[in-house]
Amino acid sequence: MKIAIAQLNFHIGNFDGNVEKMLKSIEEAKAQAADIICFSELSTCGYPPRDFLEFDDFIKKAEEAVARLAKAADGIAVVVGSPSKNPVIEGKDLFNSAYFLADQEVLQVQHKALLPTYDIFDEYRYFEPASEFKVVEYKGKRIALTVCEDIWNIGNENPLYTICPMDELMPQQPDFILNLSASPFNYNQADTRIHVVRSNVERYGIPMFYINHAGAQTELIFDGGSLVMSANGNIHDELPYFEECLRVYDLEEVKRGEINREQVKNKMAMIHDAIVLGVKDYFGKLGFEKAILGLSGGIDSAVTAVLAARALGNENVRVVLMPSQFSSDHSVQDAKDLAENLGLQYDVIEIEKVYHSYLKLLEPQFAGMPFNITEENLQARIRGMILMAMSNKFGHIVLNTSNKSEAAVGYGTLYGDMCGGLSVIGDVYKTEVFELARYINKDGEIIPENTIIKPPSAELRPNQKDSDSLPEYDILDKILYQYIEKRQGPQEIIELGFEEALVRRALRLVNINEFKRHQTAPVIRVSSKAFGMGRRMPIVGKYLS
Amino acid sequence: MKIAIAQLNFHIGNFDGNVEKMLKSIEEAKAQAADIICFSELSTCGYPPRDFLEFDDFIKKAEEAVARLAKAADGIAVVVGSPSKNPVIEGKDLFNSAYFLADQEVLQVQHKALLPTYDIFDEYRYFEPASEFKVVEYKGKRIALTVCEDIWNIGNENPLYTICPMDELMPQQPDFILNLSASPFNYNQADTRIHVVRSNVERYGIPMFYINHAGAQTELIFDGGSLVMSANGNIHDELPYFEECLRVYDLEEVKRGEINREQVKNKMAMIHDAIVLGVKDYFGKLGFEKAILGLSGGIDSAVTAVLAARALGNENVRVVLMPSQFSSDHSVQDAKDLAENLGLQYDVIEIEKVYHSYLKLLEPQFAGMPFNITEENLQARIRGMILMAMSNKFGHIVLNTSNKSEAAVGYGTLYGDMCGGLSVIGDVYKTEVFELARYINKDGEIIPENTIIKPPSAELRPNQKDSDSLPEYDILDKILYQYIEKRQGPQEIIELGFEEALVRRALRLVNINEFKRHQTAPVIRVSSKAFGMGRRMPIVGKYLS
Repeated sequence: MKIAIAQLNFHIGNFDGNVEKMLKSIEEAKAQAADIICFSELSTCGYPPRDFLEFDDFIKKAEEAVARLAKAADGIAVVVGSPSKNPVIEGKDLFNSAYFLADQEVLQVQHKALLPTYDIFDEYRYFEPASEFKVVEYKGKRIALTVCEDIWNIGNENPLYTICPMDELMPQQPDFILNLSASPFNYNQADTRIHVVRSNVERYGIPMFYINHAGAQTELIFDGGSLVMSANGNIHDELPYFEECLRVYDLEEVKRGEINREQVKNKMAMIHDAIVLGVKDYFGKLGFEKAILGLSGGIDSAVTAVLAARALGNENVRVVLMPSQFSSDHSVQDAKDLAENLGLQYDVIEIEKVYHSYLKLLEPQFAGMPFNITEENLQARIRGMILMAMSNKFGHIVLNTSNKSEAAVGYGTLYGDMCGGLSVIGDVYKTEVFELARYINKDGEIIPENTIIKPPSAELRPNQKDSDSLPEYDILDKILYQYIEKRQGPQEIIELGFEEALVRRALRLVNINEFKRHQTAPVIRVSSKAFGMGRRMPIVGKYLS
Repeated sequence: MKIAIAQLNFHIGNFDGNVEKMLKSIEEAKAQAADIICFSELSTCGYPPRDFLEFDDFIKKAEEAVARLAKAADGIAVVVGSPSKNPVIEGKDLFNSAYFLADQEVLQVQHKALLPTYDIFDEYRYFEPASEFKVVEYKGKRIALTVCEDIWNIGNENPLYTICPMDELMPQQPDFILNLSASPFNYNQADTRIHVVRSNVERYGIPMFYINHAGAQTELIFDGGSLVMSANGNIHDELPYFEECLRVYDLEEVKRGEINREQVKNKMAMIHDAIVLGVKDYFGKLGFEKAILGLSGGIDSAVTAVLAARALGNENVRVVLMPSQFSSDHSVQDAKDLAENLGLQYDVIEIEKVYHSYLKLLEPQFAGMPFNITEENLQARIRGMILMAMSNKFGHIVLNTSNKSEAAVGYGTLYGDMCGGLSVIGDVYKTEVFELARYINKDGEIIPENTIIKPPSAELRPNQKDSDSLPEYDILDKILYQYIEKRQGPQEIIELGFEEALVRRALRLVNINEFKRHQTAPVIRVSSKAFGMGRRMPIVGKYLS
């Protein structure tokens, strides 16, 4: 038996586009004599469709998509993920289903049983869990059909669910497992995924074909890396990351388990590639081509500019240098050097005159009051306004250049440097931004060395440095990581050896700045806990604040 | 037996404050010889605690709060909602529990079985559902202890759950039902709630004490209105809405069912009071006193100013009139009249000079290009910046004045008129804003009549009217209501008699403007479907767009 797996880049709600893409893959698989082709979870409608699932019209369109694919299941079986209606009146209205289409009909439908409802996942909001499990019999083989999380309740110290679908299916003696996934990237996820797939094949003694989605959906990057694993735990094949791919396998060969090839994974390379895909798909799927961003001479905007240029092409990225009286000469030069290294169109727009026109305008109100954060924010907001005006006039999307450390502690100006349609490095801590810059420069200087080595500064008042207001990033980032990614409380973090006052201050800053993060652009997620849909915090509260 | 119910205003994560408040109520109830006092759902930690629940430290503090309350359960039983740990390793780590505290100990704990996971609710994200149901025996009575949603699976045409906790409890012959709730306001919710409570008492033939939370938590307004209902469906008592209250009842009297008094509910009065509480608690719980907003002379900012003044006191609300060359004379006068009617401090700050300084600055880039949306947005953003600068200098929170119709179709400028820390009327359609203005003026003119009767205009170019860009609001709002609140698709809305092109355009505008709503302030929720945490839509998609 020959099995094709296709990791494709779907577009949420674009049923026609998604079906066309799958029809093309079905033709390719047939040309390679495949008996079965399998796509990823909810591939008709794209993942995650979120509250579109609550619209009957949306579900009807998904059903029509399945019907079109069923027609193409002629001489080949097609396995596709799509929402299906729950015929029972009690419970949620939908299932998250895998359709097994053969001989131009729906041969079988298996619903998902384990519905992730944590972090970025909301599946119990929409779906009823499966209560029946039945292998699919096709061409003399018995197939355990599973959807994503269904294989994830194994080998955990703290299992999230009380049942295990594969345990239910095994008495029916399946020959192999098909798993339709939509598993989003974080820089540890590929390893975790391989561990989970291996735990399954080793426990059940049968091979698995694991098909992931490959494409970015706003903040979520589905990274592909689909797996074919033999029962002995060998990786028969691992599809590329961050791109579409279709490959065909001979089941008997996979069963032999003689091949074991795993791709080398480098944290910074994966983060880099994930963000590039994230930017590319955000623009492509929204129908935009051109980005604009402010270039300060600092490392955050430099890294953002490089990633944007790689995602969109240097001809599609315009940068604006907006020095004020507080900007150092070298900042402007560093920014120019970078723009020239990347071949980007750049403008230099001095903000001092507009800044003074605001001060003059507000003189009656501000009379006699000293320079403070107000005037700092004014500068940042003038820059934001210039970028927004340019984007309005020329049809760019403004890219936000905030890093995760700043976003965490609220070291940024709402509607100023926090503006933009997409936060490119908002899930990358400052210390990781430096690593990313080094990775970008690995084959030669793209980001000026001076940008990397100088002390970080917002340059909003004379001789300002980030370290005037914030702890050193190498300590701050470690505390933030414990609080955000590891969900450790103050006592637990202090016990790791950090100074109590520093820990309490950092956690307080994170909590009191929830209101700022609430109003910022979607953040491309590269860690296991990013700001955005996966981290839901009260704005008004009084906890560690 | 005497039963006290207390609907209190809790503060998320403020364990000490919440416990102090409950201890005071326990003393009051004891003074009135109550045998039992019952508080609302998750009253130790406040509702909704959201992802704070994922921190062990937070759960530990909730446990400590329960221990403090247990000590006070001396001569009185105390029923309190709090998270509790799931001792079973499989499944979610927590339960959403009702603690029955008596004789300074935990007499019994009943977990919640029905976990709302829709709209603004995320309970399955955190909690494992109860699988055991046992009445509490106390002073010769058998009490059916339930948490919020547990009583909501009755009388629905489309029940969300496959089990019904009260059906499980009834064989144990309870004498009455206690229900600990945190049920957020929308303008139909009080009626729905009474219907649900009545369905229960009539089905099971026993009375119910229904205790709701009373306080605002960012966007959610918990409106109180706790209920004591006799088995015959008579409303023995209905607590006030939007305020704290403690009352004590004699169980035998409630059983007799001789009293039936229901408060009159007026949609606009309830929306008005809900928003006033929402603003008041947003400021109070964040530790702010003063608000600032722009007053354009239009109806949205007028209504917002009135609501803010009623929430915070007129001495705490400052308004800024920011006319440009496109502002009409009457707008400035209307705004001044309102400020004077309300006794608000106001500033007039003309934006024309700053506007021209931007145009001059951007001349090299914009040379030869016509006036368009860019220049309109510039004006709106200058106003936003002035408000933000004032708020930075004087310690205000900026109030956002966008209405739901604008927010829906993206008729607003990001970082301009869409700025602010809290959206006051962002869940009120434009046509309802007019109703609210009439309600405000019911006893005399507060909002100038001219503000109410003139055609809505953004005044960002000469002689502009909203109706140049948008359908008339009386049609638009009806389409939006069908799409947003009723989740009807285009075909269903067209079949209601609306013009196809108009429907498709309106729905498209809603969907393509998700990116704007993503970056706006929390919206005080007054309808059954508000923008914000209860409506989760993809930003990048291609559905009806």
